[in-house]
Amino acid sequence: MKTVVVRNIQRTDAALVKRLGALGVATVHEAYGRAGLMKPYLRPVWAGGEAAGTAVTALVHPGDNWMIHVAVEQCKPGDILVVGCSADNADGMFGVRDAKSLREMGFPVWSKAISAKGTVKASLGAVNVPVVCAGINVIPGDAVIADDDGVVVIPGKDAAEVAVRAEKRHADEDGKRKQLAAGVLGLDMYNMREPLKKAGLVYIDEPEED
Amino acid sequence: MKTVVVRNIQRTDAALVKRLGALGVATVHEAYGRAGLMKPYLRPVWAGGEAAGTAVTALVHPGDNWMIHVAVEQCKPGDILVVGCSADNADGMFGVRDAKSLREMGFPVWSKAISAKGTVKASLGAVNVPVVCAGINVIPGDAVIADDDGVVVIPGKDAAEVAVRAEKRHADEDGKRKQLAAGVLGLDMYNMREPLKKAGLVYIDEPEED
Amino acid sequence: MKTVVVRNIQRTDAALVKRLGALGVATVHEAYGRAGLMKPYLRPVWAGGEAAGTAVTALVHPGDNWMIHVAVEQCKPGDILVVGCSADNADGMFGVRDAKSLREMGFPVWSKAISAKGTVKASLGAVNVPVVCAGINVIPGDAVIADDDGVVVIPGKDAAEVAVRAEKRHADEDGKRKQLAAGVLGLDMYNMREPLKKAGLVYIDEPEED
Amino acid sequence: MKTVVVRNIQRTDAALVKRLGALGVATVHEAYGRAGLMKPYLRPVWAGGEAAGTAVTALVHPGDNWMIHVAVEQCKPGDILVVGCSADNADGMFGVRDAKSLREMGFPVWSKAISAKGTVKASLGAVNVPVVCAGINVIPGDAVIADDDGVVVIPGKDAAEVAVRAEKRHADEDGKRKQLAAGVLGLDMYNMREPLKKAGLVYIDEPEED
Amino acid sequence: MKTVVVRNIQRTDAALVKRLGALGVATVHEAYGRAGLMKPYLRPVWAGGEAAGTAVTALVHPGDNWMIHVAVEQCKPGDILVVGCSADNADGMFGVRDAKSLREMGFPVWSKAISAKGTVKASLGAVNVPVVCAGINVIPGDAVIADDDGVVVIPGKDAAEVAVRAEKRHADEDGKRKQLAAGVLGLDMYNMREPLKKAGLVYIDEPEED
Amino acid sequence: MKTVVVRNIQRTDAALVKRLGALGVATVHEAYGRAGLMKPYLRPVWAGGEAAGTAVTALVHPGDNWMIHVAVEQCKPGDILVVGCSADNADGMFGVRDAKSLREMGFPVWSKAISAKGTVKASLGAVNVPVVCAGINVIPGDAVIADDDGVVVIPGKDAAEVAVRAEKRHADEDGKRKQLAAGVLGLDMYNMREPLKKAGLVYIDEPEED
Repeated sequence: MKTVVVRNIQRTDAALVKRLGALGVATVHEAYGRAGLMKPYLRPVWAGGEAAGTAVTALVHPGDNWMIHVAVEQCKPGDILVVGCSADNADGMFGVRDAKSLREMGFPVWSKAISAKGTVKASLGAVNVPVVCAGINVIPGDAVIADDDGVVVIPGKDAAEVAVRAEKRHADEDGKRKQLAAGVLGLDMYNMREPLKKAGLVYIDEPEED
Repeated sequence: MKTVVVRNIQRTDAALVKRLGALGVATVHEAYGRAGLMKPYLRPVWAGGEAAGTAVTALVHPGDNWMIHVAVEQCKPGDILVVGCSADNADGMFGVRDAKSLREMGFPVWSKAISAKGTVKASLGAVNVPVVCAGINVIPGDAVIADDDGVVVIPGKDAAEVAVRAEKRHADEDGKRKQLAAGVLGLDMYNMREPLKKAGLVYIDEPEED
Repeated sequence: MKTVVVRNIQRTDAALVKRLGALGVATVHEAYGRAGLMKPYLRPVWAGGEAAGTAVTALVHPGDNWMIHVAVEQCKPGDILVVGCSADNADGMFGVRDAKSLREMGFPVWSKAISAKGTVKASLGAVNVPVVCAGINVIPGDAVIADDDGVVVIPGKDAAEVAVRAEKRHADEDGKRKQLAAGVLGLDMYNMREPLKKAGLVYIDEPEED
Repeated sequence: MKTVVVRNIQRTDAALVKRLGALGVATVHEAYGRAGLMKPYLRPVWAGGEAAGTAVTALVHPGDNWMIHVAVEQCKPGDILVVGCSADNADGMFGVRDAKSLREMGFPVWSKAISAKGTVKASLGAVNVPVVCAGINVIPGDAVIADDDGVVVIPGKDAAEVAVRAEKRHADEDGKRKQLAAGVLGLDMYNMREPLKKAGLVYIDEPEED
Repeated sequence: MKTVVVRNIQRTDAALVKRLGALGVATVHEAYGRAGLMKPYLRPVWAGGEAAGTAVTALVHPGDNWMIHVAVEQCKPGDILVVGCSADNADGMFGVRDAKSLREMGFPVWSKAISAKGTVKASLGAVNVPVVCAGINVIPGDAVIADDDGVVVIPGKDAAEVAVRAEKRHADEDGKRKQLAAGVLGLDMYNMREPLKKAGLVYIDEPEED
Repeated sequence: MKTVVVRNIQRTDAALVKRLGALGVATVHEAYGRAGLMKPYLRPVWAGGEAAGTAVTALVHPGDNWMIHVAVEQCKPGDILVVGCSADNADGMFGVRDAKSLREMGFPVWSKAISAKGTVKASLGAVNVPVVCAGINVIPGDAVIADDDGVVVIPGKDAAEVAVRAEKRHADEDGKRKQLAAGVLGLDMYNMREPLKKAGLVYIDEPEED
């Protein structure tokens, strides 16, 4: 592990990030080919928050928050701090404390745990190097979109293409939502009846005798 | 696994379901001999919701929601969709997405996880066959009662008897609640002092030297 | 296991408990040398509650709440009931039911699970003996502080010293909070730049070629 | 929950069970349409054991083994005891003790945990009623096949058909195993190249620039 | 947390420890009133090992093994090192590495995880103070008995009484084992038929119609 | 997610991989600055196996093994297949079956679970793209070292430097092992006494009164 702080990272274009944020995690994740979604154990500390920004990363050792202080200095407006733990335990080590204040301030945080456990400042890590967080490899500057459904990460080089596809998807879904609200079934809207029949699905009127 | 859709299921009487729903999960579960309770990892997506209905079941493969579309067509007002995963992983595969919308719509959902993870439509499952969900075998048409304390399932054939017993229990509990509020101890209300003494419980005034 | 109920326990001074409660879990835990914090799986049943009191303990067998009734009689105003399970399973057995009522009454509870699972009254345990709960050994009369960040336990004999240290810490943190709000970095406030440099941290302007 | 012991259960034909046992869990599970597999947290207490038999079921309360004694009397040679816990905790309550003796005796057991935790004999359950165990609903008399890969349950009424299909599958797999050993690729053996191409899979010779 | 090393601890009598060790974890745990058993996530690194000794304790911070070196100096022949983590994460931090060597040397270790994760030497803890390990509060000098069924801890002051009761239990069990081997049922040996009948257990010959 | 197969990956030099493999997971992980270690839930299917090779990667969807067949064709002698799941569930989906055969063949596999669960062949993934597996981002061609202590991944560009450092560490450890075997304490060998004293560690001869 290199113990460096990288100062000049290449951030995904802010306008792109904003467009992705407007679409929400589920749509962006689908538009990215069902990839980029962090593991579902990462949950919002308070419900209803939403965030979209560019990743500043910190690689830390379990129970040691020295690098977090270093990383904060590298954060600019529009950044989201992403913390990865080097070779961590299955459960990770960092929780979040002051949950109540975060909720009151409306400061959005997604975390694996809430815990008041104190930390030390003993081991160097790194800032703005690639880190794995909740199962996703995050490159500094990547677009990070988070809401009640989880957190999705889109590499900077793919952000433009994903935004276009996600917006198209969103427009399509909008129409579909209206149809569903009007009572149309998914079965019909997606033309599933024929493929289901072909695959062998059979309708019967009485449960079989057990 | 039979890849069938059963159309005409026998639903538990709606009036019975309503009576059970009015009593809540804890009382119904007790009245059913402490049985029928789904595992506690099934949690409401938003707090405060309550639901009581008859089970329409879907048996799906992990990560595949094809059968959910098929099942929705079989749902009538008063039904609750119960999804089981064939031989699934310890953690199951289906989360729930659009958590925020569900909360805003007041649409009640109980789930093991919240996740934006996309699904495929590739494998046939079945609709309205018995499924195991969160440790309980659910027969289509069973009464399903859900609130903040969890989810309990009562087989249709037992619903009438359980409703009577649960209502009696509820009436008893009502009296007990009033006594407890008036300061009566559980020890006295349940006449526990004698059996505790018989079992060997001893009161002492000083902790023993360690 | 002794099956006893100890009646006259020595409670931590109420004024001390109040002072600790005013400081919150995170500050008290730090002031106690980063010790005393219960495992983070113990979560509040509803967000925003706070409690500070003296421990009345109950040692129970899994799924058996007989001793809880016994313990309630030993509780006085200002007490918090702490329940430990003898040699329990990894997940423990006691959940909490009636979550909705607890929220409505504003009755604060911290628990590993919410579950309507019924219990029996079959095995003796003990009341006001030391119990391990969520990884902490709790002596009857210990100070227990709980909020959204978790639960911390301070032995009675250490409470006065911890209160002093925690208040000092809180005063210091207050000044720090103001500095942080004014834009001062943790790096500067804690004089981290020099030790970080000494430890070998290097700032670079471009990510290295991969 | 009915507190009954059912004496005369209908056991799956012993010859069928033997045929299924000879094929192993993975093949039988596939032949049953990828269904019937108990959750993977059920593991053999010692590696290398194999068992095939008919289910005698016991429905117990957590930490209470009274019904196990009752169930043992109902077991005949060729039976496998399947224990389900009524509305149990996520982790279940029963471990297995005397692991060393079981290994030395060559007595095969599959369990969620190994634990010396003592049990009580306080609550009635039932014997030879349907129970959910590790996610599968088991009917008394069902065929149960267990080996190092896990445990699969085949309902008596399906056993004959599954045995035929599993034997055919096994014969096919035997041929495939020989081809694979001879160096044939799965890609060719299963004719996957065309469908993969159609689905859009592209081969490239250099990783793309990141 | 006091950062001390206590040098002169009072060890449980070696002859008593030996007697307890000869009886095994399950018997000792039962004889101690079903108490003292560490959580079942503590597993032997290799199967078949057994250990009985007196506890030397180390209280460490997550990922920091400084105190382990300090504790080793305090260990004498007949001691077992018990490591507790101050306010640790749900999963703890210390695994065990060099699993293969431990197996080859026949050096018995019980652990929550096996992991090669490196540690730091940065924070003081304590040696020979009470620690909570796997749910049990361990006092330095306590008797620790470990085998394939888990780990049980008996306080020094209770060891003599527990040894007597456990030996009596063992002698009784020996007779019972012979009876069971001769085909006697637990139902008869423990005279369960009458109490089961009284409790309401009913034998029927045919499963009820569903 | 790109649905591609990359054919010409750049493999870490085989001689380097061999050197790393000879040193074992723990030493290599330390020499790499305590980084690169996969999460400890990845366990060997059978104890005692060791493997060192270059990564061929497969990115799959949960429960879908189509890409594994594709990946096998890309494997050459000396490769290790590393499977990552796109945005998978906390528990992942792929277990390993035929555990017994793997043990008998001496074919080494590290896995999160053993499960006979069948898979489908429905969704494209990718082969030889970077994948996150057990918390580590693996680039095709990286060195992968696995033994009973876990799995560590060293990027190709760092392998030479890590091998040198790990060999030096191994030589040092060899000397230390001899000293330890001769009865030297870690406290003395690592000169810890002075820093421990400075940090405030105090030796006392009697436990304090509680």
